[in-house]
Amino acid sequence: MEPDAEDRIGGIAVVRSVAALRRVVAGWRQAGRSVALVPTMGALHAGHLALVARAAALADRVIASIFVNPTQFAPHEDFARYPREEATDAAKLAASRCDLLYAPPLEEMYPANFTTTVSAGAIAEGLCGRFRPGHFAGVATVVAKLLQQSRCDLACFGEKDYQQLQIVRRVARDLDMPVRIEGVATVREADGLALSSRNAYLSPAERKVAPALHRVLSETAARIIRGEAVAASAAAGAAALAEAGFTKVDYLEICDAETLTPLQQLGRPGRVLAAAWLGRTRLIDNVPL
Amino acid sequence: MEPDAEDRIGGIAVVRSVAALRRVVAGWRQAGRSVALVPTMGALHAGHLALVARAAALADRVIASIFVNPTQFAPHEDFARYPREEATDAAKLAASRCDLLYAPPLEEMYPANFTTTVSAGAIAEGLCGRFRPGHFAGVATVVAKLLQQSRCDLACFGEKDYQQLQIVRRVARDLDMPVRIEGVATVREADGLALSSRNAYLSPAERKVAPALHRVLSETAARIIRGEAVAASAAAGAAALAEAGFTKVDYLEICDAETLTPLQQLGRPGRVLAAAWLGRTRLIDNVPL
Repeated sequence: MEPDAEDRIGGIAVVRSVAALRRVVAGWRQAGRSVALVPTMGALHAGHLALVARAAALADRVIASIFVNPTQFAPHEDFARYPREEATDAAKLAASRCDLLYAPPLEEMYPANFTTTVSAGAIAEGLCGRFRPGHFAGVATVVAKLLQQSRCDLACFGEKDYQQLQIVRRVARDLDMPVRIEGVATVREADGLALSSRNAYLSPAERKVAPALHRVLSETAARIIRGEAVAASAAAGAAALAEAGFTKVDYLEICDAETLTPLQQLGRPGRVLAAAWLGRTRLIDNVPL
Repeated sequence: MEPDAEDRIGGIAVVRSVAALRRVVAGWRQAGRSVALVPTMGALHAGHLALVARAAALADRVIASIFVNPTQFAPHEDFARYPREEATDAAKLAASRCDLLYAPPLEEMYPANFTTTVSAGAIAEGLCGRFRPGHFAGVATVVAKLLQQSRCDLACFGEKDYQQLQIVRRVARDLDMPVRIEGVATVREADGLALSSRNAYLSPAERKVAPALHRVLSETAARIIRGEAVAASAAAGAAALAEAGFTKVDYLEICDAETLTPLQQLGRPGRVLAAAWLGRTRLIDNVPL
């Protein structure tokens, strides 16, 4: 099950180099197994484990990667304080249907003279792309690398990061990568808050406000389905977020579910997406239309 | 030898879709064959055929692609008049050790909503990158696609387009593509002129001047090896090109052979590179140091 892995941690096989990863995958391939990848930045929660479960349902072997990718954080963002808890993560993966943890160090991902960037174009420029310049180029580049390193048949991404999911789909298709990109529904707390590693940053008071994000998105979707105007519904949603206690609303928009261009009228599948701040913590969420 | 190919032209099997290409390659893989790709824009000459010969020496099966890639031409460049002669090219490939011609139409390479770009960073910004903005992003993107479409083990590129070769190496390494990039020495006319599809644009008078490009590059390399200063040698070389009849010199530079940054002193492998115009035709060439 874990041929040739370099090490074990918390009961799961772990590899830390591309060469070791490829040796394990080559062994699986020779045995005729299909391979799925679940890319993560660690600090695993039930949302990540749902990705592993879906991956295991669709492929014979599952790799979870943990890599806190510096190139997708802007200088002022939370790279330094982003939670890192590999031992706990490994134990969670050992209890899941994951077969291998791939946890490369920085120098394995970005060797000397690394200069290449993958950009998804306009689909990465709106929504979060407007507020996090360079973020999605960092994401697209590291995901392209992980897909090539593992040569997986399938990779699972959460719908919680909906723009990221659509960007990964676009890049994989545009660059003809022979991989299926599988979106997995957001896992939520009982009160509707989408699971996120960044929820750990919330104070108790902020945590009480946080579920309003999903509630307002759902209400906005309901308004539009009832026939209210898109622009007015978006404005009302943004106002409701501020009213609920969000300290800043980066955006609340209604977009085409595939291209993420502003949705003018119903007919094509749509998505309601928002990003809003509670103090120093930025939360994102989205719902289908 | 050509399982499942859609068609034959000039005696060689041809496929025009990614799906058909992959069916042929999958058949080869099942039979345990290794696969090499020779990406071209057609208008094949002995330089391209040297790439095919090298590919055939290193792999069991050889694919040549012909695709005049619009995204690597700037609006004012020669995309419209670039030579297109598929029947002649196919006959040349049929007489070579090429096994398959892959000649996709535009819509197969760039379907609706195509937006992804691969950029190599600083290595693509100097030399030709300074004079052809967007050119190398077009090259890097289409090569990334061709490598993914074919999933070749190996791809051959000519040293004549030396900056392109180093960019392709960089992108393949940075994105962890499991492919070997093989550089092949420039094929030259008896008078030293590097073979190029663009040589067909030269008038008889321009054709007489053209070999001076290689001669001046060789002389510049010899000066530096003799110990003359790099900057003075480059300046003398540029002056010699103008003297010989080149109507404009875009650059003549001495660079590190791998990173293409300006070479300050000998010690690491170097390369002398130039681009210069004869009327409406831009020629490039380079020699090792």
